[in-house]
Amino acid sequence: DSRFTFIGGPCVIESERLLMETAEKVKRITEKLNINFIFKSSFDKANRSSIESFRGLGFEEGLRILEKIKKTYDIPIITDVHESWQCASVAEVVDVLQIPAFLCRQTDLLIAAAKTGRTVNIKKGQFLSPGEMKNVIYKLEEIGHRQILLTERGTSFGYNNLVVDMRSLVEMRKLGYPIVFDATHSVQRPGGLGTATGGDREFVPYLMNAAMAVGIDAIFAETHPNPEKALSDGPNMIPLHELEDILSQALEIKSVIKKKIIE
Amino acid sequence: DSRFTFIGGPCVIESERLLMETAEKVKRITEKLNINFIFKSSFDKANRSSIESFRGLGFEEGLRILEKIKKTYDIPIITDVHESWQCASVAEVVDVLQIPAFLCRQTDLLIAAAKTGRTVNIKKGQFLSPGEMKNVIYKLEEIGHRQILLTERGTSFGYNNLVVDMRSLVEMRKLGYPIVFDATHSVQRPGGLGTATGGDREFVPYLMNAAMAVGIDAIFAETHPNPEKALSDGPNMIPLHELEDILSQALEIKSVIKKKIIE
Amino acid sequence: DSRFTFIGGPCVIESERLLMETAEKVKRITEKLNINFIFKSSFDKANRSSIESFRGLGFEEGLRILEKIKKTYDIPIITDVHESWQCASVAEVVDVLQIPAFLCRQTDLLIAAAKTGRTVNIKKGQFLSPGEMKNVIYKLEEIGHRQILLTERGTSFGYNNLVVDMRSLVEMRKLGYPIVFDATHSVQRPGGLGTATGGDREFVPYLMNAAMAVGIDAIFAETHPNPEKALSDGPNMIPLHELEDILSQALEIKSVIKKKIIE
Amino acid sequence: DSRFTFIGGPCVIESERLLMETAEKVKRITEKLNINFIFKSSFDKANRSSIESFRGLGFEEGLRILEKIKKTYDIPIITDVHESWQCASVAEVVDVLQIPAFLCRQTDLLIAAAKTGRTVNIKKGQFLSPGEMKNVIYKLEEIGHRQILLTERGTSFGYNNLVVDMRSLVEMRKLGYPIVFDATHSVQRPGGLGTATGGDREFVPYLMNAAMAVGIDAIFAETHPNPEKALSDGPNMIPLHELEDILSQALEIKSVIKKKIIE
Repeated sequence: DSRFTFIGGPCVIESERLLMETAEKVKRITEKLNINFIFKSSFDKANRSSIESFRGLGFEEGLRILEKIKKTYDIPIITDVHESWQCASVAEVVDVLQIPAFLCRQTDLLIAAAKTGRTVNIKKGQFLSPGEMKNVIYKLEEIGHRQILLTERGTSFGYNNLVVDMRSLVEMRKLGYPIVFDATHSVQRPGGLGTATGGDREFVPYLMNAAMAVGIDAIFAETHPNPEKALSDGPNMIPLHELEDILSQALEIKSVIKKKIIE
Repeated sequence: DSRFTFIGGPCVIESERLLMETAEKVKRITEKLNINFIFKSSFDKANRSSIESFRGLGFEEGLRILEKIKKTYDIPIITDVHESWQCASVAEVVDVLQIPAFLCRQTDLLIAAAKTGRTVNIKKGQFLSPGEMKNVIYKLEEIGHRQILLTERGTSFGYNNLVVDMRSLVEMRKLGYPIVFDATHSVQRPGGLGTATGGDREFVPYLMNAAMAVGIDAIFAETHPNPEKALSDGPNMIPLHELEDILSQALEIKSVIKKKIIE
Repeated sequence: DSRFTFIGGPCVIESERLLMETAEKVKRITEKLNINFIFKSSFDKANRSSIESFRGLGFEEGLRILEKIKKTYDIPIITDVHESWQCASVAEVVDVLQIPAFLCRQTDLLIAAAKTGRTVNIKKGQFLSPGEMKNVIYKLEEIGHRQILLTERGTSFGYNNLVVDMRSLVEMRKLGYPIVFDATHSVQRPGGLGTATGGDREFVPYLMNAAMAVGIDAIFAETHPNPEKALSDGPNMIPLHELEDILSQALEIKSVIKKKIIE
Repeated sequence: DSRFTFIGGPCVIESERLLMETAEKVKRITEKLNINFIFKSSFDKANRSSIESFRGLGFEEGLRILEKIKKTYDIPIITDVHESWQCASVAEVVDVLQIPAFLCRQTDLLIAAAKTGRTVNIKKGQFLSPGEMKNVIYKLEEIGHRQILLTERGTSFGYNNLVVDMRSLVEMRKLGYPIVFDATHSVQRPGGLGTATGGDREFVPYLMNAAMAVGIDAIFAETHPNPEKALSDGPNMIPLHELEDILSQALEIKSVIKKKIIE
């Protein structure tokens, strides 16, 4: 539908209980705010900084839990895929397949995801200019796939830092697909913690507000009841109890934004 | 007073007539929008890309025109200074002395500007992180000067490009002074036109909205009745007839922004 | 052995004839210069800018040709892998498996490559600081694999541009593995040609000399008898007839470099 | 003359004794290595990070000491100027006027320096692409001044970091003037020490070697008998007792570099 969309959940599938609890609470918040909700969590973190990081509960157990959430709460699910062979199985459970930023140029993965017929959310690589997403999209369009979302999640800015170029949202919107702003990965500090990725959670609501003021179709944000104890991306996830206030502020900005500023 | 402030005018003092016309029109717009107005124009563009660029009508003629505008329209004036010796004379006419971004680390210029007793608006250098502005400010505080404005105008991002890091507004606000967002210089493309600086005027309203959504105290934007014919910074100035719509949208965002998002 | 190594060949397997011709000529050059030679070509370019770009002759035909070159000229072969399932088959033919820069954080691919027992050449991602390669390497060391090469190929520098930070060679060398400098991909202009990656071949010998002067163990460079007609990476490959002069100059620099500058 | 040139000395004029000692020792080293020597020290550090940093012994005392060195050791002197009024007096003593990187776009300063008739060494701004130096040079050429040196000293790379793009040396050389590589400022970490600029002295010899291998006409490096106790730029200056070995290695690279790599 045409309402605004929130995409979120805990970064990685830590346990069924955590996911159920988060899904339920976020569902209630999004209903209250009258926006769509797509639940996100990763069955596998294939590109962790360190080999010793927690990667998830595995492919099958992960998909089982995502399916349970989908049925229990009647909400669509998004998750990320990392190799072509995963796409078909994942598409049986989830509604949106997500292409991680590092992988946004991998043609086989893009095609395999598109061939499932599911919506494909492509995260713009940290190494890419917004204009280059045109070629990425074209790989899907060539096989007749047009169910596409484009996500901004920050661009490489020197070492161990990302910057969000708000012009990127404007540029990508010209490509004709809904634009998502990933507010939590955008504040990551890659390699900032030695063997883990750091982050500045403090900036999440500000960047979210800014993106809203530029004009976007959905917000992506990872959230967790207790980010300090999260098994992945703790430093940038939103504490679950703050989510409503943060989204609520962002939506107020959306309500005053005109489609065209200059008549 | 505590109202929002607009700082603007034509980039360079091209002629008395141009300045008078622009000042009058912008004054009317800001009164209608119920915000403060500080008129800006440069008597000299000391750092033009090319030696053959128009630099202004000269120091004395420039100051004379600025003074006339100040008296005719009863509005405060801001202009930039480039060498220490200019500060005293300029301060006799204008209300705010502006330190250009390239010069924000020049101690003598900062001190000379502060010693006039006038408010000093310091533009953050394109080569500086927001945290480094702490040391810049301290140079003024050391001699007891606290009438300071801090302006974000973009950061070097590869060659021939600037990026606005919205986190910079948050970081600089922590330093305790009003924060200005320069919406027109932020979209410059340094060296992008060979012997002139290019720019993407298209992005001005988007970045302005984004900065408003993050939280700022003033907007700086150069405006001109006919930017295509402007003698400096044409590619990024706002056409005067669009200014009201653009500011009006930005102010609507301001009206819904809370001081603290999370209670 | 302890001699310097040249890794190179045409970017992608365009035809058996092209590869045979190139391998033979480069072999002769490297013998004359008394350095090792590892022949490189890709059976598949999985991350081309555009869907319509030539990707190669396919997995099996590509491996067949690489095997023929290996046997005909008695030279080791390196090629890149993009998904885990490819590693075992590729390892039956080639001596070194190469991890593309975009994929240097994909744990499964790294592990699958390491498990073949072959040497693994990891290209540092354009989005990574040199220090972050420590975690990448550790993923291989954890399963007891230490046959590793590390390759510098440039870092994101604004949009559509890469910069080679020569400090990266020094930093990566501290990790204890041989360092390769990829002189041709380092001069790429990502997205610089619209639907293709541009490049500045002109800078290749300069960057190669510079890397030599810093201290490296191998040079990687793509070369082609006729780069203007090449089906991939033409703008940055070295014309085959210039290779000897360029390598020869670089080796002269190597001959005067001391291990320790300061006694 | 056509020999290679070394430009160096302690960053700031700390005392007559320090300068005399350094000048004498460096003169002996450069004579032994058979290269030119231009002594550099600053009478004033006008752009220190912090207001509390040592700025020098003042304009007149500084010039007096520089003149004494010039006469005592019969060596040419270079120093930097920060405002137009300084140029004439400085030119009476020194042989080369240096334009600091932050100030390379200040037209009045460039013109004032050129009008003295002395050679002008322009440092490329950290915010500038090498191609933009063409416009900078043209400001001098317009008034008939062609005694110009161009210096590379690193480019902004994210926050608190500089990167040396070796392509810049090639690009600037095309402009037709001698190219200097500033090996010690290039390893600065702007703002890296809170109220001071940090630096990685470790990388100085590597970057110097790399620049030599690309092809330059002079090396600029600050050196001090005891950098740990230096009053400015300690973290990146070369300890005086290491200078000979470092320069000696760099010159060996120069000896093997051909003017044209490809015949």
